[in-house]
Amino acid sequence: MRMVDLIDKKVAGGELKHEEIKQIIDGFVSDEIPDYQMAAFMMAVVFQGMTDRETADLTMSMMYSGEIVDLSEIKGIKVDKHSTGGVGDTTTLVVAPLVAACGGTVAKMSGRGLGHTGGTLDKLESIPGVCIEQPMSRFKEIVNNIGVAVIGQTGNLVPADKKMYALRDVTGTVNSIPLIASSIMSKKLAAGTDAIVLDVKTGSGAFMQTVEDAEKLARLMVQIGRLVGRSCVAVITDMNQPLGLAVGNALEVREAVQLLSGEISKGDPLYEVCMLLGVHLLLLSKLASDEDEARAMLEGALSRGEGLEKLRQMIAAEGGDASYICMERIDELCKVKHKLEVRAKKAGYISSIHAERIGTAAQMLGAGRATKQDVIDPAVGLVMNKRLGDYVAENEPLCTMYINDDTRLDDALETFYSGLEISENKPDYRPMIYDIVRE
Amino acid sequence: MRMVDLIDKKVAGGELKHEEIKQIIDGFVSDEIPDYQMAAFMMAVVFQGMTDRETADLTMSMMYSGEIVDLSEIKGIKVDKHSTGGVGDTTTLVVAPLVAACGGTVAKMSGRGLGHTGGTLDKLESIPGVCIEQPMSRFKEIVNNIGVAVIGQTGNLVPADKKMYALRDVTGTVNSIPLIASSIMSKKLAAGTDAIVLDVKTGSGAFMQTVEDAEKLARLMVQIGRLVGRSCVAVITDMNQPLGLAVGNALEVREAVQLLSGEISKGDPLYEVCMLLGVHLLLLSKLASDEDEARAMLEGALSRGEGLEKLRQMIAAEGGDASYICMERIDELCKVKHKLEVRAKKAGYISSIHAERIGTAAQMLGAGRATKQDVIDPAVGLVMNKRLGDYVAENEPLCTMYINDDTRLDDALETFYSGLEISENKPDYRPMIYDIVRE
Repeated sequence: MRMVDLIDKKVAGGELKHEEIKQIIDGFVSDEIPDYQMAAFMMAVVFQGMTDRETADLTMSMMYSGEIVDLSEIKGIKVDKHSTGGVGDTTTLVVAPLVAACGGTVAKMSGRGLGHTGGTLDKLESIPGVCIEQPMSRFKEIVNNIGVAVIGQTGNLVPADKKMYALRDVTGTVNSIPLIASSIMSKKLAAGTDAIVLDVKTGSGAFMQTVEDAEKLARLMVQIGRLVGRSCVAVITDMNQPLGLAVGNALEVREAVQLLSGEISKGDPLYEVCMLLGVHLLLLSKLASDEDEARAMLEGALSRGEGLEKLRQMIAAEGGDASYICMERIDELCKVKHKLEVRAKKAGYISSIHAERIGTAAQMLGAGRATKQDVIDPAVGLVMNKRLGDYVAENEPLCTMYINDDTRLDDALETFYSGLEISENKPDYRPMIYDIVRE
Repeated sequence: MRMVDLIDKKVAGGELKHEEIKQIIDGFVSDEIPDYQMAAFMMAVVFQGMTDRETADLTMSMMYSGEIVDLSEIKGIKVDKHSTGGVGDTTTLVVAPLVAACGGTVAKMSGRGLGHTGGTLDKLESIPGVCIEQPMSRFKEIVNNIGVAVIGQTGNLVPADKKMYALRDVTGTVNSIPLIASSIMSKKLAAGTDAIVLDVKTGSGAFMQTVEDAEKLARLMVQIGRLVGRSCVAVITDMNQPLGLAVGNALEVREAVQLLSGEISKGDPLYEVCMLLGVHLLLLSKLASDEDEARAMLEGALSRGEGLEKLRQMIAAEGGDASYICMERIDELCKVKHKLEVRAKKAGYISSIHAERIGTAAQMLGAGRATKQDVIDPAVGLVMNKRLGDYVAENEPLCTMYINDDTRLDDALETFYSGLEISENKPDYRPMIYDIVRE
């Protein structure tokens, strides 16, 4: 069929066959299908959606558009985690070493931050010496030796996604659950691990603004994993405020070190989401028989400092100076020209936090990128003093901004203030964890 | 605003401002907005539609993307007619001269046929010598001298539409009422006449398959005309069978000559639609005070042979050999190698005619183009022997095919047969004229 007939079929609400989807992806990657037809097709998908079967076929076609990583040289069950992107979400730097400390095998290729969300690679690079570009052989060696490695994507993985995402970004076709699911899953499946834990964020700082949409995305991704024989679990967690208190690269590394040093207590959102992800990673690794056992293993490793030790080992293996990775020295990475306490203009309860705006305020200070070409300042960002539902007195500090370049400070302050609502009434309780999707 | 933000706005169901629509069209024509963004935008319009105001703004922006024809050198009220495209629809060759014979001033730029629909220019070119490419000065001169001219589009009229249509054609975005309305009306308005009668076809051979969609398109186009101060009337007519009996270029010229020679009687669909269009053209020309008066004028001119004489004058003025334009010689233009009577496989009532398939069968014989590059054979096509609702005996001729090249004759026959349904019961009566939309 001609591409225009396939577009017409989707516009009319039809279901595309396996071969038709393969024809679209292969044609697009080989430049036989021009951008304008692909853009029209993806816009039709935005409106008409795709069935689970179509989305699984799309994911497979995208995955096979490039290299597939072969991790068979690594012993044991290889696990990976993926978050759909959040603010102050430093779970990877906590969970990956902690699971490895419990005997797990965490082989993770990570991404960079864009817009209001942070990226694990940028956080790792705030540690002097760390090189996230490691050859595949070295990646496998590190995982085999110490049980965990987090590096940048290597090789020609999923070129279809790179090309599709670049087009979606400029054609208003980002916001489509089947397109998001296939983009994430094609990369995770091509990365070659046996099992994947997905953290689907929902709320003001997330792609999925409603729990319903997050549920749909989570179920779809788990379903795709099942259709291709990989174990997948998705958790749906809250992103109606930054997950941790820190938003910024070295600042988030510091918060991870604090957590792994026992400085952050149970019940804290970052702590609890890390435990939840760790539990499901251990279960998929078949290292624990139930959630209680898995949690006890994680908390044991944490209390004995074994997670922090694993993080130090991983950073050293990737060329970094691990001597910073302790409570005594971690502050040295967060040195800035000046700090600014951002104070409440009135008293009341923090009734709403727009996480995306908090992330954007940090980005304006230099902690993130507006475009891919932007250079990040690893030390800057902000640390929240308050969480959703907290009471704040007039003039009490809401956050501390870490500043080196104050060119856009006014913008950052305005954006930060616009992201917080203070009112007389304590807001309703919001769960931190909405659901766990196993199949 | 960036183009991607304008696309997002339309995807979210928002209404674009005048300046935003102008920015899109100007940017697209100047190549600042790439095809892929325009394709995504138009697909969003397919799903989200446009308000009347947006469509009027779109039409205006498209119209001003190129030259605007200035017809002020032509005396009187200049009128134009436009059909949304049909099969066996040779109304222009009847109505334009007939209205001119009644004192009207018909200045029409016409198009070529594509796919299953015919085009007036191709029909005119089946007459030896006719040159449809006339300079603007000559066009005005002909209209001033004899009251009517039909030529090909001249100058750089509505480049936005050319570029948009080429993209719509390959991106599944043809079928959108606001995009169709703005495409038609931008060209009609740029062509500079004071008043326009629109013939919106509905049924199996038309773009608008339902009367509801035809009503929407008709109302929208009349509304656009009103917003920019032009008089517009739209009629909604049936295209559930070819309008005339002839489908082919010289064959349709012959049918026009037959009608203008008094050989086709009242009540015949082609006759009645011609009268309807003529009545509204005379009313908009302010040459008649009511429909009865207008119809009497048209029938008078017809009976006195003045319409045929006007057609001969126009053809001569455009370089053609007008001596063919009479009942005695017109058959000479329809000479082919052989004719084939296509016979009914069973007896019964013609219960359905798929006009598009009849048009496609004629196209396969060489009467039309599948692509713009195809060359037309002016003499070939088919002439129907039966109309919807007629009884046909087994083996009775359904149509006569006029054939020079029988390479695709089998395809043409199969397509023709697939376009006709014969059943035991007489089908329900269908009106020929559904509605007249004045504002």
